[in-house]
Amino acid sequence: MMFKEKKKMEIKEELVRMGEKAREASKILANLSSEEKNKALEEMALNIEKNAQKIKEENIKDIEQARKKGLSSALIDRLTLTDKRIAATSKGLREIASLEDPVGKIESMWKRPNGLFIGKMVVPLGVIGIIYESRPNVTVDAAGLCLKAGNAVLLRGGSEAIRSNCILVDILQEALGRTKVPPESIQLIRTTSREAVTLMLKLDEYIDVIIPRGGESLIRTVVENSTIPVIKHYKGVCHTFIDSEADLKMAEDICFNAKVQRPGVCNAMETLLVDKEIAKSFLPGMIQKFKQAGVEIRGDEKVREIAPEVKLATEQDWFTEYLDLILSIKVVEGLDEAINHINHYGSHHSDAIVTKNYLKAKKFLQEVDSAAVYVNASTRFTDGGEFGMGAEIGISTQKLHARGPMGVKELTSHKFIILGEGQIRK
Amino acid sequence: MMFKEKKKMEIKEELVRMGEKAREASKILANLSSEEKNKALEEMALNIEKNAQKIKEENIKDIEQARKKGLSSALIDRLTLTDKRIAATSKGLREIASLEDPVGKIESMWKRPNGLFIGKMVVPLGVIGIIYESRPNVTVDAAGLCLKAGNAVLLRGGSEAIRSNCILVDILQEALGRTKVPPESIQLIRTTSREAVTLMLKLDEYIDVIIPRGGESLIRTVVENSTIPVIKHYKGVCHTFIDSEADLKMAEDICFNAKVQRPGVCNAMETLLVDKEIAKSFLPGMIQKFKQAGVEIRGDEKVREIAPEVKLATEQDWFTEYLDLILSIKVVEGLDEAINHINHYGSHHSDAIVTKNYLKAKKFLQEVDSAAVYVNASTRFTDGGEFGMGAEIGISTQKLHARGPMGVKELTSHKFIILGEGQIRK
Repeated sequence: MMFKEKKKMEIKEELVRMGEKAREASKILANLSSEEKNKALEEMALNIEKNAQKIKEENIKDIEQARKKGLSSALIDRLTLTDKRIAATSKGLREIASLEDPVGKIESMWKRPNGLFIGKMVVPLGVIGIIYESRPNVTVDAAGLCLKAGNAVLLRGGSEAIRSNCILVDILQEALGRTKVPPESIQLIRTTSREAVTLMLKLDEYIDVIIPRGGESLIRTVVENSTIPVIKHYKGVCHTFIDSEADLKMAEDICFNAKVQRPGVCNAMETLLVDKEIAKSFLPGMIQKFKQAGVEIRGDEKVREIAPEVKLATEQDWFTEYLDLILSIKVVEGLDEAINHINHYGSHHSDAIVTKNYLKAKKFLQEVDSAAVYVNASTRFTDGGEFGMGAEIGISTQKLHARGPMGVKELTSHKFIILGEGQIRK
Repeated sequence: MMFKEKKKMEIKEELVRMGEKAREASKILANLSSEEKNKALEEMALNIEKNAQKIKEENIKDIEQARKKGLSSALIDRLTLTDKRIAATSKGLREIASLEDPVGKIESMWKRPNGLFIGKMVVPLGVIGIIYESRPNVTVDAAGLCLKAGNAVLLRGGSEAIRSNCILVDILQEALGRTKVPPESIQLIRTTSREAVTLMLKLDEYIDVIIPRGGESLIRTVVENSTIPVIKHYKGVCHTFIDSEADLKMAEDICFNAKVQRPGVCNAMETLLVDKEIAKSFLPGMIQKFKQAGVEIRGDEKVREIAPEVKLATEQDWFTEYLDLILSIKVVEGLDEAINHINHYGSHHSDAIVTKNYLKAKKFLQEVDSAAVYVNASTRFTDGGEFGMGAEIGISTQKLHARGPMGVKELTSHKFIILGEGQIRK
């Protein structure tokens, strides 16, 4: 017990030291030019390429450990850094370098009747804490995006990727040593103790925002313990609603893409809603197509009237993010029931209507309360790159600060600048 | 003990019921037209005017109670609703009605190479929880601003204003009964139990954001207990730095205004920094002027060399928001020391430089990390109205979501709308 307390104290002291260094680094970083930041991103990319072999050597140790622990092959796949994936992280850093630098931009400026000029200047957030799970390439992506927006970052990756994350951050810091960006701009919490997360969440003096990327239990832990503002990246229970006036061929293509193209991601469809008027003409072919692709279907009673072999969906199904080749299907009375279902059971992530009717499309856009609301397209497009915002740090499922894909711009804040010539308040 | 637990359960159930009603109301409110919301604001203003006498009758009970409890005259003044102040709240509601409605605006829309149109539509935040202290007019202002931005609001005012707040919310709800805005859009937590605040902060299912307005201990309680995102409205330790190249007459006017015009507010100056080169020519006259206005001065050793009668400032003074006719003064080596002092001891609220030197002004604007950074003007202008943003709900001192004065626009979020014609992801 006493040993445990001592250990906790040590972790806390170490975290405070990291926080102090990150805060100092962030002050320097905030005032560097775009050129200097882009040079740092290029050095980071080069150093990763140069050290690909070393990275793989450390990564293989993580993989061996994961195998011993009996982790699933899906998890091991996420953990694995191949030559191709390493090259992709370098490419990603260069893409980030090519993005527009939002920092220092005066977004608007106006003149007041008393002659004051008031402007809004984009500034970095400061220090960002990122808590994420298995994939080690997130380490590099997140570090690059934070740096571009002028922020220092404290990274806390999954324990199963610890060796890969350590070597990656060593390589990034070494690269920063050749630039004006302080190496302490990118730091990794190297203890795998769970205590470190709880302690990190109380460092409100040093960290300006926490971005948790992961499952329900991680998000809960963060929200309940953090005294730092949090931007949640939570699950996606995404819907597609096929209206009675849909182009049924288009509907089939969109649904198939939304479910099957990459089922393990948050913008994949989990529930299909079908207007009762076209259920009989649409569902048999659609369900057959899904079955051929290996999709397990769970439907309500009305779906089972059309396809009796389908398993009955439970109340819990409508809330579930399967992240797998499973789909729940419900026949609805019409647009209103579809909107109510989405707003009640959904996770306010990405939802689509397929229709040729203008008024129904407009009502759906207006009333569905989600980060991304689609007409006649696959929900799979919810992504910073696909939206044209450049690389993304993730997809925010909350309404505060950033909603939907978060790019470089969403990692900034602003300050008001006021230019006077002696104005005082009457 | 058992009684206490039962009481807590009852409060929790009541809060959940209020939260559910607020959530339902917010869904209706989100889709009302500007016309309907403005009509509601006008009805609210009219009903306050009609019931001014009733309001004063309830208010006098709060005041009597406050006198019995021995509250300070300053607090009793803040609590008091005179005819003039009641009229001002009605006027405030009409001003809010006249502001532009941000909701539904498409801020930008762009076309992707695949033909998708992607736009950002402004939407309400949903349900806002506001926790505030004594002044009952905040009840009306906050309700009006939230309503204009399409949000439902749960208000938790100070216990000393409970009767005034109850009658005001009764009157506002009665007015809403004559409009399309659901009366449950504006609700007041009517128990004065402290437990209610802690319980309110866990209603993340029903409340989208908590805005605490008050002193250090309130803000701490909220930040430590809330599972709902918080927008802090914290203290203002504001500085004015008089550069060696300042117009000294302008500097004197700005400093005097920033300290004396209204010392009890967050944008008043608390610390004056003076470049050592002009300290001897500037400080004697400035200090005399402050003394004539009844300002108590606390200075560092160098100030005391110039004005030996001045009390020595302690380390704690540099961190203190006096909210009173007290000022700390420090002589600094130059611009760098001034910027470092402000970023270290300040509260990142509002800070000013007085100078005629362009490069120093630019450096100050760039490097001072505050919500509002001024050149040659009084910090007293940090205010939604003075900035031309219309009425404000307060001044955010955090970087996330909103920084500086928060008007109607800052009470909104956005959603992405995506218009396709069958696009699927490759």
